[in-house]
Amino acid sequence: MSEKIPYKIYLEENEMPKQWYNVRADMKNKPAPLINPATHKPCTIEELSHVFCTELAKQELDDTTPYIDIPQEILDFYKMYRPSPLVRAYCLEKALGTPAKIYYKFEGNNTSGSHKLNSAIAQAYYAKKQGLKGVTTETGAGQWGTALSMACAYLGLDCQVYMVKVSYEQKPFRREVMRTYGANVTPSPSMTTNVGRKINAEFPGTNGSLGCAISEAVEAATSQEGYRYVLGSVLSQVLLHQTVIGLETKTAMDKYGIKPDMIIGCAGGGSNLGGLISPFMGEKLRGEADYQIIAVEPASCPSLTRGTYGYDFCDTGAVCPLAKMYTLGSTFMPSPNHAGGLRYHGMSSVLSQLYADGLMEARSVEQTSVFEAAEKFARTEGILPAPESSHAIKVAIDEALKCKETGEEKTILFGLTGTGYFDMYAYQKYNDGEMSDYIPTDEEIAASVAKMPKVD
Amino acid sequence: MSEKIPYKIYLEENEMPKQWYNVRADMKNKPAPLINPATHKPCTIEELSHVFCTELAKQELDDTTPYIDIPQEILDFYKMYRPSPLVRAYCLEKALGTPAKIYYKFEGNNTSGSHKLNSAIAQAYYAKKQGLKGVTTETGAGQWGTALSMACAYLGLDCQVYMVKVSYEQKPFRREVMRTYGANVTPSPSMTTNVGRKINAEFPGTNGSLGCAISEAVEAATSQEGYRYVLGSVLSQVLLHQTVIGLETKTAMDKYGIKPDMIIGCAGGGSNLGGLISPFMGEKLRGEADYQIIAVEPASCPSLTRGTYGYDFCDTGAVCPLAKMYTLGSTFMPSPNHAGGLRYHGMSSVLSQLYADGLMEARSVEQTSVFEAAEKFARTEGILPAPESSHAIKVAIDEALKCKETGEEKTILFGLTGTGYFDMYAYQKYNDGEMSDYIPTDEEIAASVAKMPKVD
Repeated sequence: MSEKIPYKIYLEENEMPKQWYNVRADMKNKPAPLINPATHKPCTIEELSHVFCTELAKQELDDTTPYIDIPQEILDFYKMYRPSPLVRAYCLEKALGTPAKIYYKFEGNNTSGSHKLNSAIAQAYYAKKQGLKGVTTETGAGQWGTALSMACAYLGLDCQVYMVKVSYEQKPFRREVMRTYGANVTPSPSMTTNVGRKINAEFPGTNGSLGCAISEAVEAATSQEGYRYVLGSVLSQVLLHQTVIGLETKTAMDKYGIKPDMIIGCAGGGSNLGGLISPFMGEKLRGEADYQIIAVEPASCPSLTRGTYGYDFCDTGAVCPLAKMYTLGSTFMPSPNHAGGLRYHGMSSVLSQLYADGLMEARSVEQTSVFEAAEKFARTEGILPAPESSHAIKVAIDEALKCKETGEEKTILFGLTGTGYFDMYAYQKYNDGEMSDYIPTDEEIAASVAKMPKVD
Repeated sequence: MSEKIPYKIYLEENEMPKQWYNVRADMKNKPAPLINPATHKPCTIEELSHVFCTELAKQELDDTTPYIDIPQEILDFYKMYRPSPLVRAYCLEKALGTPAKIYYKFEGNNTSGSHKLNSAIAQAYYAKKQGLKGVTTETGAGQWGTALSMACAYLGLDCQVYMVKVSYEQKPFRREVMRTYGANVTPSPSMTTNVGRKINAEFPGTNGSLGCAISEAVEAATSQEGYRYVLGSVLSQVLLHQTVIGLETKTAMDKYGIKPDMIIGCAGGGSNLGGLISPFMGEKLRGEADYQIIAVEPASCPSLTRGTYGYDFCDTGAVCPLAKMYTLGSTFMPSPNHAGGLRYHGMSSVLSQLYADGLMEARSVEQTSVFEAAEKFARTEGILPAPESSHAIKVAIDEALKCKETGEEKTILFGLTGTGYFDMYAYQKYNDGEMSDYIPTDEEIAASVAKMPKVD
């Protein structure tokens, strides 16, 4: 066991990044622009500004500025819960008996329980700066809603969260965390919006869906003066904010002379993976270094590994702009996998383009094997991981075991996005041996892909 | 806002303590010894070794050795989740508008969610070293049971937890965390022990109690070969292990030239407060420095502020040795306050003696005001605190507001023992305005005090 590298590397406060890194600036093939579903023309800042804060709309469309200053107020908030530790997984390495060196960047040590807070504070800050009264959003698993509630409480901004009804009822404790932070949490579909009333009338007793919750949140934002809608993943602005993860990681690794051979992250909408890999991908794009980069997705919702690259709606309700991405079709209904944060039909346009260009790989894994990896990790590293994060753990362990066979001393870095404290129902299913796997058929995927909008 | 002191101070790995500090060595008036309830003579190591691991029995009785080496295996485990941060509460100070400087030592960034892990790994380690198969314990709120499960999983030791039945049913997620770490969790009273069967026969449908769970855990330990019983608080050995909290705090403060004027901690059995204050109390005992030290307890279970100083049973079931302590009587039934970790009738013998000698103060606070403080803290500092820890927050805020009135720039240090992620039912009651306070009458306390064993 090397004693040179500590178990945990914490940067000093003055080593924390002061700018976000915009990987799009270094991409030769830029991600395709968002387009207006009515005109099929690229969305303008003005169009986006009806839904998003103006500064965020600008960030969304900016694919040339490589570094963007992080405002001082956001830096101060980051100092409250960052830097996050870069952990050397000595105990896991020992348990696996692998010559590989495993590192993970752990984003779960904050009350929202994940990396989501990095973008929540940024989006809330720009809303506050624009003089808005509040923001609206949707939440499924609840990590994003919690993060936004925390950011809004800190800034004194109203926060309206539409929470998928089944989650609202099955995850009452997530709901209570948001309420403790002063958020107004409404089960969706609700009777407070036109779209909610319409869906309730059409499907009495429905449990709701993320698509419906998005539609309600967008309506709530656009129908109240002084409100805008915010989103926790998929968008390029969110990836930008999340680069604080990768930048801290890179600084910590450079400080100790560590160079990862491979970088692994789970991918739902892509915000955490994009944030983690951006500075490394920048070096790769500029020809300064090479890294093997692996996106891990659930076999039940395999957008990169089995989806189609094309323009699609970002939301099931089809109220948002069209984005070019790897997608299973916005009408694809993923099975009730326990990794709610990865149950998304598409993938960030930035990551989709990088994947299309062969700059990163993708793998899909089944949830029972993911929970096996999660259990092993919890017992050896002492952290109970979120189901989403455990997808990355699964592939990191697979790769470390390959090294055991070959004797290679590879350096593996993965993103541990969060904790599973509010996912114990899923762990209970696993502990009771009642977890099942589900893989969609080619026909199922083809059916939803066939319903994608026709563009070009 | 001073920029010299960072928001969070993390020690380097090589600055972490390598010895525990035994404050009893510096006490002129030693804590009274544990006595055998049958003979009323001080317990010997041999007697204690039937229930506890031998090395731990030695630590329990050692009141002269000032420093005890922390074994390397425990140091390695500590590195997995320690050092814990010493946080400057800049955001809280700003929100309060106080000239006071507030610091807190945060022990919640590990999966058990509290400081309990510091002693759990030590107790599990000595059990393993003694060649035991496993350990038994009881748990109420669940933090201790979780911590012990984690430690046992790491060392490959069997862990049998008797969990108060009402908690087992109402906190299924706590139970699942323990199961994920491989622990055997049994609702108490169970049908697996004589005492459990007897209680079930006598009180059909009972919800259980901590006293009953202790009795079952002790029976399970003494009736199985290769097992011992372990306890998460009250005992002097536990305070010893918890001094890692205070030692880290002292090192971090010394590094930045910070000297606290007052030190505040919540007190149930006393392990966290004892651990935090020990190195500071040592200076006070040796006449090297002075600190105002405040123990905070719930008004519903006020052992220091309204209890009697005398010999009493440590457990409701009256199977353990007698300890001299401030106590409400071991038959005292505290109201269902939400801070389960503070619902204990007595107080550590060490802290009791220090309190009797006027070396520390005590205050009691009501739970509604505690949750008000918790909410304010969560919204400004971004950490959702455990109900137990929030007792310390409440008094820290009170003191900071006094400074605002007087203009004094006092330095306040408090212990933030853990997070409230598994206490959301309590937060829900608070959010819904349904929380009530309860203060026992003098008659209630007198009735249980009257039932204390007669010693001397």
